[in-house]
Amino acid sequence: MNQTAAAPARPYGRFFLPGPTEVHPDVLQAQTRPMMGHRGADAQAFMKPLHDGLKEVFLTERPVFISTSSATGLMEAAVRNAARTRILSLVNGAFSQRFADIGRACGFEVDELSVPWGEAHDPGELEARLSASAYDAVTMVHSETSTGVLNDVAALSEVVHRHGDTMVLVDSVTGFGAAELRPDDWGLDFVLTGSQKAFALPPGLSFGVASERMMARAATAPKRGYYFDLEFFAKNHAKDQATTTPAISVLYALEVQLQRMRHEGMEARWARHTAMAERTWTWVDDMRERGVGLSVLAPEGRRSPSVTTIVLPEGVRGPDVTKGVIERDWLVGGGYGKLKESSIRIGHMGEHTLEQLNGLLTVLEEVLA
Amino acid sequence: MNQTAAAPARPYGRFFLPGPTEVHPDVLQAQTRPMMGHRGADAQAFMKPLHDGLKEVFLTERPVFISTSSATGLMEAAVRNAARTRILSLVNGAFSQRFADIGRACGFEVDELSVPWGEAHDPGELEARLSASAYDAVTMVHSETSTGVLNDVAALSEVVHRHGDTMVLVDSVTGFGAAELRPDDWGLDFVLTGSQKAFALPPGLSFGVASERMMARAATAPKRGYYFDLEFFAKNHAKDQATTTPAISVLYALEVQLQRMRHEGMEARWARHTAMAERTWTWVDDMRERGVGLSVLAPEGRRSPSVTTIVLPEGVRGPDVTKGVIERDWLVGGGYGKLKESSIRIGHMGEHTLEQLNGLLTVLEEVLA
Repeated sequence: MNQTAAAPARPYGRFFLPGPTEVHPDVLQAQTRPMMGHRGADAQAFMKPLHDGLKEVFLTERPVFISTSSATGLMEAAVRNAARTRILSLVNGAFSQRFADIGRACGFEVDELSVPWGEAHDPGELEARLSASAYDAVTMVHSETSTGVLNDVAALSEVVHRHGDTMVLVDSVTGFGAAELRPDDWGLDFVLTGSQKAFALPPGLSFGVASERMMARAATAPKRGYYFDLEFFAKNHAKDQATTTPAISVLYALEVQLQRMRHEGMEARWARHTAMAERTWTWVDDMRERGVGLSVLAPEGRRSPSVTTIVLPEGVRGPDVTKGVIERDWLVGGGYGKLKESSIRIGHMGEHTLEQLNGLLTVLEEVLA
Repeated sequence: MNQTAAAPARPYGRFFLPGPTEVHPDVLQAQTRPMMGHRGADAQAFMKPLHDGLKEVFLTERPVFISTSSATGLMEAAVRNAARTRILSLVNGAFSQRFADIGRACGFEVDELSVPWGEAHDPGELEARLSASAYDAVTMVHSETSTGVLNDVAALSEVVHRHGDTMVLVDSVTGFGAAELRPDDWGLDFVLTGSQKAFALPPGLSFGVASERMMARAATAPKRGYYFDLEFFAKNHAKDQATTTPAISVLYALEVQLQRMRHEGMEARWARHTAMAERTWTWVDDMRERGVGLSVLAPEGRRSPSVTTIVLPEGVRGPDVTKGVIERDWLVGGGYGKLKESSIRIGHMGEHTLEQLNGLLTVLEEVLA
């Protein structure tokens, strides 16, 4: 049989989207292993090291649940299992907005605490809001993929914990694996990520860690459904089983990628991402000094190590820049939503190296010249 | 990096689970293609032929939605989008029971119309039940994977349509691709399947087709959520886009597998499955005549073409038989749930051929001797 999807012309190491990210050839290759049954002793023997490895890379003592869904599915799991009536959603970009939208779609009353796209949330403002009103849960995004802003989820979580039995629900889709993340130490009641960002796996799986108090809340959540029922996840995880038939080929990829991540170490992985991010920000400053009016959208100190949104000079259109990059057989992300015309995004995450990033920046200089 | 999951010793063509099914090496290989972005013109150009091909193999004029979830996720989609208050679930095995459980987990009132495991539903009984009480939706399973029973969903659907605005929700997980299925002609308001059964893809995707009246119902369904919102699927499908980041490598596999399925033709595919099923049933009868007391659980006329549950002679344990098959480097399914000790299941579906099936039956004879 012929494969009709054109193979990309570009060699490995030139794919800088803010997700999906490029996947190492060894990890892609793992997906070709023949199927296995997903129940019984063999499947448990296969799943147990995955479960152990996930706890290690998430720096948690809690079980890490594997969902056969994109991360949006686990965002829905978060609100369905945590909320009774009212949710406060911290909104500073498209994906934190999605968290609020999901809450409403599930029938909850959602208040938004919004700051402009490109800004981070201030723990003081959250404190004020929580002092004025009670919520079942607060949703927030660790690294806003739409803007490249990193929220200080540790500080925000601490604020929430001062206000009674309110769950801290964290989307760390482009945070996990790139930025420091300590679910247990930071008191995150539910933190989730997708497979296809700094995890550098193919999309199709998402991962979630729930605190004990989140599990207690989930146990009594009415109408939480079946597919995203955290008790269903916990019950199966305890037996080293998947809930329903999992995306087996992506699990094979996970097995190989966990080896890669454990070999690198999470702190080294964070450092590599930080180095790539800082290189990008320095390059932006250099370009500006050389007369090309670029700037980083996110403020200093609250920039994501995995994705940088670069605001372009007036008169330079984002889609023209991304097109110019593609014409040179590289790939970079467009600005998201309302930032599409005015910006581009570099996803410097996953298995990328500083050397590959330097290659991209050289190409970008050529395009912007 | 080393791959630690042991590669199965058995060659291709010996994996007869009732799901996941064996995947053709060409289809597995398609998963190694590098990632692509899932938004924009390139992604649309990639998705459109998949959408067209899916309509063709589902014999429908309606859009076929692709969900990055297992089929259980789309079972939840079915009830969340169709039901207001009351559901009638036709239960004759583990997966039709799951449909009822999902309805309850979503907060609906669920009545069950049950027949014993191994039996099919009678349209007359359904008629009587619907005459006595009103429901928003009726759930049913086309091919019960736990028992190998094929319900006459065309006849059952016709009965439901005589009773007002009640949605017909059909799990065709082991039906689609193996047994005749005509969503439009049969008035199925929602029919779903998973990628890893007779579709012969790796697990990770599921597929659903909704009628116009189902879409109208969905549009006003409260609290239907976000991830399984059929309007969200429809809106994105209309632009040849995925809802959220899809399982890209499984989509690559789908592209190759659609070519294989269209090349074979759906009627030929059904015929091949029927031939494999009939060969299995004949073999069971032959064995019985030769003194090995096997029988097919499902009654004649209501047997699934994709999975056969074989009841073993007294004193022969299902787990011992499956173990004996594994020791000979083949694989066959165990009995499901309460049938585990007393039966085995053969998944004669997907890309299997009569020749491969004959190989398995020879091995089974050896084990049962």
